[in-house]
Amino acid sequence: MPDSLEQFFNKVDELSGSFINDRLASAIKIQSVSDDPDKHTELDEMTNFLVAELEKLDVAVKTYDIGDRPDKKAIKLPKVVVGRYPKISDSKKKTILVYGHYDVQPEGTGWSHCPWKLEEDNGRLFGRGTTDDKGPVLSWINALDAHQQAKVDIPLNVLFCFEGMEESGSIGFSQFMKNNKELFASVDAACISDNYWLTTRKPCLTYGLRGIDYFTITVSHRGVQLHSGMFGGTVHEPLTDLVILLSKLVDSKGKILIPGVNELVDPMTLTEKERYKKIDFQMDDFYSSIGSEAAIYDNPTDTLMHRWRYPSLTIHGISGADSSTDETTAIYPNVTAKFSIRTVPCMPGDKVAKLTIDYINSEFAKLGSKNTCEAALFGESVPYWMGTPDDTNFTAGSNATERVYGTANKPDLTREGGSIGVTLDLQDTLADKSIMLLPVGTSNDGAHGPDEKIDKRNYIDGAKLLGAYWHYFAAQA
Amino acid sequence: MPDSLEQFFNKVDELSGSFINDRLASAIKIQSVSDDPDKHTELDEMTNFLVAELEKLDVAVKTYDIGDRPDKKAIKLPKVVVGRYPKISDSKKKTILVYGHYDVQPEGTGWSHCPWKLEEDNGRLFGRGTTDDKGPVLSWINALDAHQQAKVDIPLNVLFCFEGMEESGSIGFSQFMKNNKELFASVDAACISDNYWLTTRKPCLTYGLRGIDYFTITVSHRGVQLHSGMFGGTVHEPLTDLVILLSKLVDSKGKILIPGVNELVDPMTLTEKERYKKIDFQMDDFYSSIGSEAAIYDNPTDTLMHRWRYPSLTIHGISGADSSTDETTAIYPNVTAKFSIRTVPCMPGDKVAKLTIDYINSEFAKLGSKNTCEAALFGESVPYWMGTPDDTNFTAGSNATERVYGTANKPDLTREGGSIGVTLDLQDTLADKSIMLLPVGTSNDGAHGPDEKIDKRNYIDGAKLLGAYWHYFAAQA
Repeated sequence: MPDSLEQFFNKVDELSGSFINDRLASAIKIQSVSDDPDKHTELDEMTNFLVAELEKLDVAVKTYDIGDRPDKKAIKLPKVVVGRYPKISDSKKKTILVYGHYDVQPEGTGWSHCPWKLEEDNGRLFGRGTTDDKGPVLSWINALDAHQQAKVDIPLNVLFCFEGMEESGSIGFSQFMKNNKELFASVDAACISDNYWLTTRKPCLTYGLRGIDYFTITVSHRGVQLHSGMFGGTVHEPLTDLVILLSKLVDSKGKILIPGVNELVDPMTLTEKERYKKIDFQMDDFYSSIGSEAAIYDNPTDTLMHRWRYPSLTIHGISGADSSTDETTAIYPNVTAKFSIRTVPCMPGDKVAKLTIDYINSEFAKLGSKNTCEAALFGESVPYWMGTPDDTNFTAGSNATERVYGTANKPDLTREGGSIGVTLDLQDTLADKSIMLLPVGTSNDGAHGPDEKIDKRNYIDGAKLLGAYWHYFAAQA
Repeated sequence: MPDSLEQFFNKVDELSGSFINDRLASAIKIQSVSDDPDKHTELDEMTNFLVAELEKLDVAVKTYDIGDRPDKKAIKLPKVVVGRYPKISDSKKKTILVYGHYDVQPEGTGWSHCPWKLEEDNGRLFGRGTTDDKGPVLSWINALDAHQQAKVDIPLNVLFCFEGMEESGSIGFSQFMKNNKELFASVDAACISDNYWLTTRKPCLTYGLRGIDYFTITVSHRGVQLHSGMFGGTVHEPLTDLVILLSKLVDSKGKILIPGVNELVDPMTLTEKERYKKIDFQMDDFYSSIGSEAAIYDNPTDTLMHRWRYPSLTIHGISGADSSTDETTAIYPNVTAKFSIRTVPCMPGDKVAKLTIDYINSEFAKLGSKNTCEAALFGESVPYWMGTPDDTNFTAGSNATERVYGTANKPDLTREGGSIGVTLDLQDTLADKSIMLLPVGTSNDGAHGPDEKIDKRNYIDGAKLLGAYWHYFAAQA
C-alpha cells in the first residue's frame, strides 16, 4: 500500500493545476443556490456537470427525481446524483458510501472577491462553494481521477451520493433515502465531508452532533394594539409576561433552568474526558471565532465540552413587538419568542419538549396573568447524533490523516455543536453501519459568509486524504 | 347671560348645516398631513384656510414662521396662526388663550369611508381630522361666527393659537412660545381642545397628563453574529442577559420593580379619592377599548387610578435580534430593548432616569456576564402635567358643560395616561396661569385610526360648549 499511495499522491500533485483551474473553477461558476427557486436552471447545470465528471471517470451514474419544489410550483427539486465505481461492484470488496452536496448558500453581501469566479490569492481559493461543499465533493472526484491516471487500483467499491438541497434543509433527501434503501444495502461504512477542522492547524474526525428542539412561546391579551400612555399600568402586557418567561429558561452563564433537562445528559466517561485533553484548541482560537472575549469558560476543555457534550439554550428573537429603533409607544397584543435547545446524549427530543412546555406553562400560571400563553415545539425534534469513534471507519480516517498530514497531526476526535440533518438520514438507512465526518476545509474558511475560501493546500491534500481513506479502510477489512 | 347664551345656542343650531357642509367639509378636503414633508402645499393651504375663516370674522390674524422642516431641506414648517378677537383687546376684559392644531395624522389603512371627503353617516361625520383636531378648531370658529350672527357679545378677549405640526411632535412650537412670550403676557387662562371624553356618554374636563421617560438597554458581546449550534453554551448571549434585565423592571401585574421609583409617587388625597367615585366609567367601557378582558384591576376606580395617577412601565420591543417568525438559529451580538416609564406627580424625570439606569447597571453587574450593557434615556424626559381643577377656569368649563349637556352631565374630572407636549409648552410660557383640556369628541372617535369620526351632536354642541365657556369664565372675573 505505501508504494501505490505514494504514486497516487504524486499524481494528485501533478494534476493539481487542473483540479483547481478546470474542475473547481468550472463548478464555482455555476450559481447553484438551492434557496432560490429561480436558480433551478443553475442547479440542473450543476447536476449535469457532476454527472459528466463522474461519467468521464467510468462511474455508473444515475440521477434521482425527488419531487417538486415546495416554494415554486411545477419546478423539480435538484436531483440526487448516485454513482457506482466500479460500474459493477466487486462483491468481494467493501463498499464505502460517500456523501456531499453540490448546492451552495446565496451570495450574500460583504465579498471582496467575486463569489462566482474562482480566484486564487496567497494560497487561498475564493468563491461560493469552495469549502461548502463543492471543494470536498470534487476532492472525491479528484481522488478517483488521480487513481486512474496513476494506474492505482481503488481497493473497494465507492458509492457516490451527492444532493442539491442541503443548504435548504435537505428537502426531499430523507424521503429519497427511505425510498431507495436497496441502493445502500451493501454499504459497509459512510463518510461525509461537509464540515471543518476545529482550528486552522490540525485535521480532525467528527463523531458527534448536537440535536435541536426549536420552540415558540406566544403570549396574547387577545385584544388590540394599545397606547402605553392610555393603557400602561391597567392591562396585563403580553411582552412583560413573555420576557419574564424567557428569563426563567437559562441564566447568563448558559445554565438551562428547566427542571429535569440537565439530568438527561449522559455523565462524562473517563475515555471521553481523555479525548478532550488531546485536542489542539486554544482560547485564542475561540476568541478569534467570536470576535470578542465574552466566553463563559476560560479554558479550552470546558469550552469544547459545552459546545459538544452539554446542552445549550439560545433565545433567537421576538416577533409581534416593535423591532425598530424608533421611539414608539405601543403595547402589542400578541408577541412570540423563539428559542432553541441543543440536545446531546441521552436527551430524547420529545422528553425535552414536554419538560420545557410543561415548565413554561407552570411558570406562566404563577404570574397570575389574564393573558394567554402557548408554548409549542416548532417543527420536529432533530435528534443528536453519535458515531463510534473507535471503529474501523474512524481508524481508517485517522490513519489516512496521519499519512497525509504527518504523525504529528494525528487528527483530533471532535464533535460539532450544530446539527447536520443528512447524518441522521444516512444513519437511519444504514442502521448500525459507521458514519464518519471527515472534513477537508479549516475553521476559518467562512462557509455561508462572504469571501468563502478553501486553502489550496487543503483542497489538494483533501484529494489525497479522501483517496488514502479508501485504502486504509480496505486494508482493515 | 342665560338669555344671550340661548340666542347664541339657537344660532349655532341654525347654522349647523353650514358649519358641517361648508366649514368642516372644506377643511377635511385639505390633506394637511404634517408627517409628510411632500404635503407642505396642503399644510400651507390649511394655514390659509384658517386665516381666511378668521379674517372673515374680524379677527386680527398674524402667521408666524417657525423655521425649516428638519426632514426636507429649504421647506418651511407650517406656520403658527395667531388671531386676536376683538382686533384691539379690551384691557378691562379677561383674555382666554385657545389652542388647537390644524395638521392631521397620515391616512393609514383600513378605512371604509373616504378619509379626505367629509361623509355623514347615521349622525357621525367621517374623515381624517374630524375629531383630531380640525373639528374642535372649527368649533371655536363656529362659536365666534354664531356669536356675531346672533349679535351676542363675546365678553372677553380671545387669543387663538393654531399650530400645524402637533401630530409630528410639535416641532418648532416650543421655540415659538419661548420667542413670543409677549404675545401671551395678558392671557388669564388657556383652553386646549385636543382630547376626548372618557366614554361615549359623558363630557369631561381634563386636569392632568402623565409624563414619559423613554429608555434603551443595549447588551453586546462586541463580537460577530454566531451560530447557536457552534457557540450556544460557550458565550454570554446578549439576548439572554437582556431578557433577564427586562424581567426585573416590572411584574405581570404592572408593579414597577425599580427601587425608589414608586416611593416618588404623591400619596392619594381624600379630595382626589372622592373625584374617582364620581366618574362615569364601567369595566365594560374598558374591555371594549382593549378588545379583551386582560385587565389587571376588576374595578373602574383602580383601573383609572393606574391609568392616571400611578406610573407604569411598558416594554415596546427589541431590535438587533430576529423579529421574523422563521426558524432561524443565530446568536445576535448586539441587542437593544426599548421601554418607557409613564411618570406622575411628583416623579422628577431625571431622578426616575437615574434610579432606572443605576438599577439596570447594578442588576447587570450581578449577572457576572462578560458582555457589555448600556442603559440610557432616549431623548429627554417629558414631565407630567397637573392642572388646578378647582380654579375658575375649570369651574367655567364645568358650568358650560352642564349648561350644554344638562345638569345630569356634570363633567367628570379626568386625567390622561399619555402626554400632550404642547400643554407643557403652554404652561412654561403661561407660568402659573390655569390650563384646562376641554374635549369636544368622544372615546370612540378613532383619532389616528381608520374611519376617524366626530359625532354630529358633539361637533355642533362643541361650538355651544366652547362659546359658553367664554361666558362662564368672563362671569367669574
